[in-house]
Amino acid sequence: MKQVHNFNAGPCVLPRAAVEKTAQALLDLNGSGMSLMEISHRSKDFEAINNECIALWKELLGIPEGYHVLFLGGGASLQFCMLPYNLLGKKAAYVESGVWAKKAIKEAKFFGEVSVIASSSDKNFSYYPAIPAIPGDVDYLHITTNNTIYGTEFHGSIDSSPVPVVADMSSDIMSRPVDVSKYGVIYGGAQKNVGPAGVTFVIVKEALLGKVQRAIPTMLDYRTHVAEKSLFNTPPVVAIYAMCETLRWIKAQGGLQAIAKLNRQKAEALYSYLDNESKMFVGTADKASRSLMNICFVMTEKYKDKEEEFMSAAKAAGMVGIKGHRSVGGFRASTYNALPLASVQALVGCMREFEAKFA
Amino acid sequence: MKQVHNFNAGPCVLPRAAVEKTAQALLDLNGSGMSLMEISHRSKDFEAINNECIALWKELLGIPEGYHVLFLGGGASLQFCMLPYNLLGKKAAYVESGVWAKKAIKEAKFFGEVSVIASSSDKNFSYYPAIPAIPGDVDYLHITTNNTIYGTEFHGSIDSSPVPVVADMSSDIMSRPVDVSKYGVIYGGAQKNVGPAGVTFVIVKEALLGKVQRAIPTMLDYRTHVAEKSLFNTPPVVAIYAMCETLRWIKAQGGLQAIAKLNRQKAEALYSYLDNESKMFVGTADKASRSLMNICFVMTEKYKDKEEEFMSAAKAAGMVGIKGHRSVGGFRASTYNALPLASVQALVGCMREFEAKFA
Repeated sequence: MKQVHNFNAGPCVLPRAAVEKTAQALLDLNGSGMSLMEISHRSKDFEAINNECIALWKELLGIPEGYHVLFLGGGASLQFCMLPYNLLGKKAAYVESGVWAKKAIKEAKFFGEVSVIASSSDKNFSYYPAIPAIPGDVDYLHITTNNTIYGTEFHGSIDSSPVPVVADMSSDIMSRPVDVSKYGVIYGGAQKNVGPAGVTFVIVKEALLGKVQRAIPTMLDYRTHVAEKSLFNTPPVVAIYAMCETLRWIKAQGGLQAIAKLNRQKAEALYSYLDNESKMFVGTADKASRSLMNICFVMTEKYKDKEEEFMSAAKAAGMVGIKGHRSVGGFRASTYNALPLASVQALVGCMREFEAKFA
Repeated sequence: MKQVHNFNAGPCVLPRAAVEKTAQALLDLNGSGMSLMEISHRSKDFEAINNECIALWKELLGIPEGYHVLFLGGGASLQFCMLPYNLLGKKAAYVESGVWAKKAIKEAKFFGEVSVIASSSDKNFSYYPAIPAIPGDVDYLHITTNNTIYGTEFHGSIDSSPVPVVADMSSDIMSRPVDVSKYGVIYGGAQKNVGPAGVTFVIVKEALLGKVQRAIPTMLDYRTHVAEKSLFNTPPVVAIYAMCETLRWIKAQGGLQAIAKLNRQKAEALYSYLDNESKMFVGTADKASRSLMNICFVMTEKYKDKEEEFMSAAKAAGMVGIKGHRSVGGFRASTYNALPLASVQALVGCMREFEAKFA
């Protein structure tokens, strides 16, 4: 098999063990003579997978009593509307930290008033905005904890809030421990740290539900999925299985403390090269806001015309997915959980070699 | 590998070629060194899969110009609400032919008035209701073409309708040719004849969109997905790949005419045994309404106490998923596209053997 270093921003690299177990289950699940794609979602086999997956979410994140873990379809983008459908009575506060936050804000406006209490749009979202005092007259505060496009991440903590805090954690969930009790809802697409595309996780505090006055269509009502353990209708079976295997791998690594340590090492290896050694490459995000998941960098003015050449050299060395988002330009290395430290070292080696040739 | 006959009602048996190709792609997609789960949905590899899948839908069903094929998340159940969100201005007509139709009706009521113009609830949905003259003052007529629980199917055709006809074809799509031009929207979950759980197909006539006055959240607006070829947000990559492989298999079988012929043969093998030979088993659905996809039968009064014993015997002979839905009881053999004729013959053999022992 071809050796690559997979820096894709999501869907992205997954633990090889999870990939191989899912591929095996696709051929023959537990010796049943059937593919994972061919079993009933009401079967004991799938019930066991679903239950284990919920249990692993609760265990790894230390989710307290009173919260439910849901596995839904439609992606985080559907949550941008499902969330206010369920929780926005009159007004909600949002932090505008990037494009995904903007999309969430747009959908919330279908359901009520939105107060954007902080934004970093003035500098193309290159920093994570400071969160001011949270107003008490809103139904919730919404934040996006990691911004894949700009490479910024929320490193603060909201220690007391007069209203429930809701977080889109699509791109840094399970990358480090999180105190779930500080949040009312945590949601995201699985396709970064916890699985393949096709399943969305929602961790929701039961006490927040049923408070808005509007009628909510059944599939968009969190209570439907809470009551049925996400089995109200046919769930995305394969994606949930692969997510379960990914969580098993996280647990086997030593859980979120160990994963966080590895993620810090990986980010440090690249940021340190950018900050302390390179004269050719420079990071784009504000240092205090830097993401441990998505590391964005460009070439300095002097070498700007070398970007394409570096891209070719990096590709030839097996680097995949390092093109930066068009709104930032340059390069982006996504260093999600399953990316080995060796891949980051290989990228730094490749940058160093290129730099030695020209700088 | 254990030999089973997979009569699951969905998710269900899939073509072995589609299963094996998907499993291989999960290990290493096109020699890329990456799993199908690890590639970007914006990559050329996935773009090719998505485009081929759309093209196969159009080719196999002969979808005319002016229609779009969308691949969404959330299941047909989400379409029960997304459809009226987009098309129901004031009033819609629904045919109540089973539990899924009832669920669709329930969701439509969130958006406007619903006129149930035909129902078979009087006889526990054991027949497909005749469709009366379609009123001209509704925004659309909604039908469910196959009712998995009761084993009934719509064998008529709607040759002229004053309003667009919308069909939930979750459980008989691609089982036979369909004149798409007679429909405004055709939708369904993939997990019967066209793929695994986790992706929903929507075939929608563009001219019907944008006519309702209400504001539609972005993800629930068909126009969003039309404009982006279902790539507005991250799609369920693996499920779409497996669907594409399933459609390739259908094409290789000779397309829908050939598939329909095989499906008739399979259904005929079992119905003929029930009608002409068996004194122990009897079909539950009205003969004229019988489904070619889900064949429901019970034991006659005299042998009622033998149901559990037959279930054990059938299981021992490798039959999977033949328990009837609790609202009908008895047995159900789902004979979707990928089920081999040999499996139906094995089931009939098993029934015959059991009957010889006791009758």
